[in-house]
Amino acid sequence: MLTVTLRLLQSHGYDRLTVDAVAAEAKASKATVYRRWPSKADLVLAAFIEGTRETAVAPKTGSLRDDLIAIGTGVAALAREHAMTMRAVLNEMSHSVDLRKAMQDKFVRHRHTMIEEVLAAAVDRGEIDAEAIDPEIWDVLPGYLVFRSLISERMPTDETVRVLVDEVVLPGLRRTRV
Amino acid sequence: MLTVTLRLLQSHGYDRLTVDAVAAEAKASKATVYRRWPSKADLVLAAFIEGTRETAVAPKTGSLRDDLIAIGTGVAALAREHAMTMRAVLNEMSHSVDLRKAMQDKFVRHRHTMIEEVLAAAVDRGEIDAEAIDPEIWDVLPGYLVFRSLISERMPTDETVRVLVDEVVLPGLRRTRV
Repeated sequence: MLTVTLRLLQSHGYDRLTVDAVAAEAKASKATVYRRWPSKADLVLAAFIEGTRETAVAPKTGSLRDDLIAIGTGVAALAREHAMTMRAVLNEMSHSVDLRKAMQDKFVRHRHTMIEEVLAAAVDRGEIDAEAIDPEIWDVLPGYLVFRSLISERMPTDETVRVLVDEVVLPGLRRTRV
Repeated sequence: MLTVTLRLLQSHGYDRLTVDAVAAEAKASKATVYRRWPSKADLVLAAFIEGTRETAVAPKTGSLRDDLIAIGTGVAALAREHAMTMRAVLNEMSHSVDLRKAMQDKFVRHRHTMIEEVLAAAVDRGEIDAEAIDPEIWDVLPGYLVFRSLISERMPTDETVRVLVDEVVLPGLRRTRV
């Protein structure tokens, strides 16, 4: 069902997607779909979370730079693939407190924990100082890459990830070592 | 007309805004409005550019840090004020090549030039090396702040701007000096 939703989202966009079309395409009854996902927004958020599952695990490469490159590469690939879905979900979030809360609980909080783990491991290995980590901007790496995918003329590439990590994120995390 | 558009956008959102409502509220004929802005997307983009005009001028404080803080503070204030409009415009950009091109020509290119000026002045003053500037990520400062305003649970504050400038952007620009 979620795979069908993502496929229809990519071909038709959020505005033209209907829960009925998803049910028909997945050969499920409308009642089944509505019981699990009461609104189109719920269904799309569930599909988005399912579609981004592969980037939900901390990379654990053993080096901070490689971990950050791995996270950034995963975010950039997903952002390129799901740009239209993300724009639509962000727009829906303007209208729906429930959708904002669900995005926070089911997606954002989890990614925050993952990045905290990566940074804590780098502190344990002695790569950076603990005081260099500022929770205010924990999401600067994924945030800028998502921004770039929303501005569709400049989709983020592997080079974007490399430059962002080597010239912005790492110098920031190493600044207390100067 | 553009002031009315912005006000209606803020109270009703993009989806519920109509060109007819703007014409009625501004006491103009529909023909006048449609002659100048053939579609709702054109009208909203024009209003967005007008509404962000105050942040279109390079600050020229004489110091790179103060220039970056001034730019970031302006972007964050606008991003907070026009978050709903920006989400809607980004979503419309998915569907419209014309809107993407207009945003690029009338907004993005201009901001790029402004940030290039600020960085070039810092190079002239000897604050940073020219080779520290990477065009690939010229918009990391405004981009992350816009991202934060799209994720509406964490609107960017003055503290966000300070942390972003002091702990991320400046260490990146000064990295070749280490």
